[in-house]
Amino acid sequence: MNLTLEAVRARDAADPLRAYRDRFVLPDGVIYLDGNSLGALPKATIASQADVVARQWGQSLIRSWNDHRWIEAPQRVGAKIADLIGARPDEVIVADSVSVNLFKLMLAAASLAPERGQLLSEAGNFHTDLHIASGAAEFARLRLDVVERGRIEAGLGAETNLLLLTHVHYKTGERFDMARITALASEAGARTIWDLSHSVGAVPLDLGRDGAELAVGCGYKYLNGGPGAPAFLYVASSLQERLVSPLRGWMGHAAPFAFTDDYVPAPGIARFLAGTPPMLAMTALESGVDLFAEVDMAALWTKSVALFDLFAELAMQACPELACVSPREPERRGSHISFRHPNAYELCQALIAQGVIGDFRAPDVIRFGLTPLYLGYEDIARAVEIMRGILDTGGWRDPRFAVRAKVT
Amino acid sequence: MNLTLEAVRARDAADPLRAYRDRFVLPDGVIYLDGNSLGALPKATIASQADVVARQWGQSLIRSWNDHRWIEAPQRVGAKIADLIGARPDEVIVADSVSVNLFKLMLAAASLAPERGQLLSEAGNFHTDLHIASGAAEFARLRLDVVERGRIEAGLGAETNLLLLTHVHYKTGERFDMARITALASEAGARTIWDLSHSVGAVPLDLGRDGAELAVGCGYKYLNGGPGAPAFLYVASSLQERLVSPLRGWMGHAAPFAFTDDYVPAPGIARFLAGTPPMLAMTALESGVDLFAEVDMAALWTKSVALFDLFAELAMQACPELACVSPREPERRGSHISFRHPNAYELCQALIAQGVIGDFRAPDVIRFGLTPLYLGYEDIARAVEIMRGILDTGGWRDPRFAVRAKVT
Repeated sequence: MNLTLEAVRARDAADPLRAYRDRFVLPDGVIYLDGNSLGALPKATIASQADVVARQWGQSLIRSWNDHRWIEAPQRVGAKIADLIGARPDEVIVADSVSVNLFKLMLAAASLAPERGQLLSEAGNFHTDLHIASGAAEFARLRLDVVERGRIEAGLGAETNLLLLTHVHYKTGERFDMARITALASEAGARTIWDLSHSVGAVPLDLGRDGAELAVGCGYKYLNGGPGAPAFLYVASSLQERLVSPLRGWMGHAAPFAFTDDYVPAPGIARFLAGTPPMLAMTALESGVDLFAEVDMAALWTKSVALFDLFAELAMQACPELACVSPREPERRGSHISFRHPNAYELCQALIAQGVIGDFRAPDVIRFGLTPLYLGYEDIARAVEIMRGILDTGGWRDPRFAVRAKVT
Repeated sequence: MNLTLEAVRARDAADPLRAYRDRFVLPDGVIYLDGNSLGALPKATIASQADVVARQWGQSLIRSWNDHRWIEAPQRVGAKIADLIGARPDEVIVADSVSVNLFKLMLAAASLAPERGQLLSEAGNFHTDLHIASGAAEFARLRLDVVERGRIEAGLGAETNLLLLTHVHYKTGERFDMARITALASEAGARTIWDLSHSVGAVPLDLGRDGAELAVGCGYKYLNGGPGAPAFLYVASSLQERLVSPLRGWMGHAAPFAFTDDYVPAPGIARFLAGTPPMLAMTALESGVDLFAEVDMAALWTKSVALFDLFAELAMQACPELACVSPREPERRGSHISFRHPNAYELCQALIAQGVIGDFRAPDVIRFGLTPLYLGYEDIARAVEIMRGILDTGGWRDPRFAVRAKVT
């Protein structure tokens, strides 16, 4: 493969999603391949945040809970996300963080099968999922079994209460077959909780079709909701009335403004709210999600696949010392591409110094997020060219690239 | 008491905190007496939010976690709040909501005395505290006993594990003697968790002096941190290393970016973080808290007392049909004044229609927040005059004021 600049530009010109690129702030001199860690800023968010701050908060003050429909935002934004993941509008709500939502779902769901004592998850799953699981297991009196990816199916059994999996692996990009695994777990009598953080907004999802009952997901990656945006959770309608959140906050009460001492869970998905939602963060998330309203999710995935294939092929030719750890088959992976290199950290820093922003993931992986809404084929070709330059010259050996920052 | 307009204006002119009023957005035609529900917008927040969105997120993207010190924000803002409440800088951290933080502290602290089976709280405490307590009690295997205010001290005994109290009551404004109650509980072998939501930023607090070990508080009331701003929690240094949060998220891990499967709590207060903090909301809170940096907290309270006394005296004269339910002695109350009236809801709506924004609290209380940073004596005099007018004319009987909004 020996692509000319004209050829990649022609592909960008023919890209049916190309117009979306102009809806984002993309700094000069930067090729942003970390939108799966923090999505880029939608231009519309600048105006919507200014409005929420200066007009809604500043002028309407407390009245905005009614007048600007703040009070409905968790449900309203949840319904918009539901539309992207094959859920019903009343099956998704925005609340808290992925970590807190995982805790809610694990404790609520575990109580449905008190005789089953195992919480099963994957070794090397995103660590906050495992940490939260360790706390949830303690309070639900479950045994947390963390097994290698290849042993998960064999690990399902008569004792399994919950299976906690991340749909797309944060490091390798490997993707589970949601329908198949959910069905296998279900046959064993277990419920599966899916973490969609590295899927939603990029990878095809159809939770209803795939029989998913419980899920959480992140607002600040492909949904472009802003740093630390609120997360969402999904509970299939059939299960909602049987679950009670361990975090029984007033926003999940059937009558939050009756101020009664006794807790009565709200009907439906609202019972999974806890405290007052952070409206500045919530409205920024809504602006990010609104960008997807007219996006053809199939076209989004088609472009992700094309970006991945281009990256993989160019890197294979130009940077043979990098070992791709992401599966090549589209149905087996997410929307990022990762490589192993003994000096992945330094290489990542050297790339950032030249404006190519990817991510290091310990101990030896460099990861590039492929966000089809705002990346183009030329970005990919240029990123690989810059990487080849750094490898050719040994530029990553500069001692300043070995200094570890707080967040890496 | 028959104050002329000149007299109240003279008091405003002599107010040593008067200059702070200009640091807030206060809409024309509004007397805002609900800053204890949602604090007013600091003008500085408009610029700081725009900067966080457009420059930090938009231009620096993921690099802002280091370059703009986002990663340190929970501790940094926590230390600023610590300064307002008589805590050490490393005893306070900003995280999640009041509800979620209460859950963390209850479950973490309860495990220190597993032989003690009672969680004690006050009937009519802010309901989210009681709801969260009911969930925490279930998972900590405690019995939740909710007793009338006057029976709390008698309720402390050999079985009491935790005492959960709100320092200033959200409805009546009654204030507990923190030092005395904490000591009484401690003598009984119990730990007290204080909810400071209606105290912080208005009422004198000295947690260290008063022997408080555990507390939570709200960012969006007197701290003016924005709608649904993140909350904070306080754990006395002596206790921090003995507590492990039930919500073991990656931000509370000793090495969040080592991506290890096993959970190792961070040293100190950071272990109470869970997921990624919402940075747009966090930085707005910081702007609100920064306004207090040079405020003399004693002067703040002196003014709150004076605003309260003026309101109480004028209302007693002008509106004898209102029964004040807030204690008159300053040391027994917070920074709001509440009245009972059989038609409190309609009266509150009629006041709002004339620009006087207070709060209704079920079933029959109307509540006015007295925020010394941006309210003046003329505001109080005019609010009472408008209220007298509504009562004189029976203006609250207008049928449109009986329609209940979603949030009241």
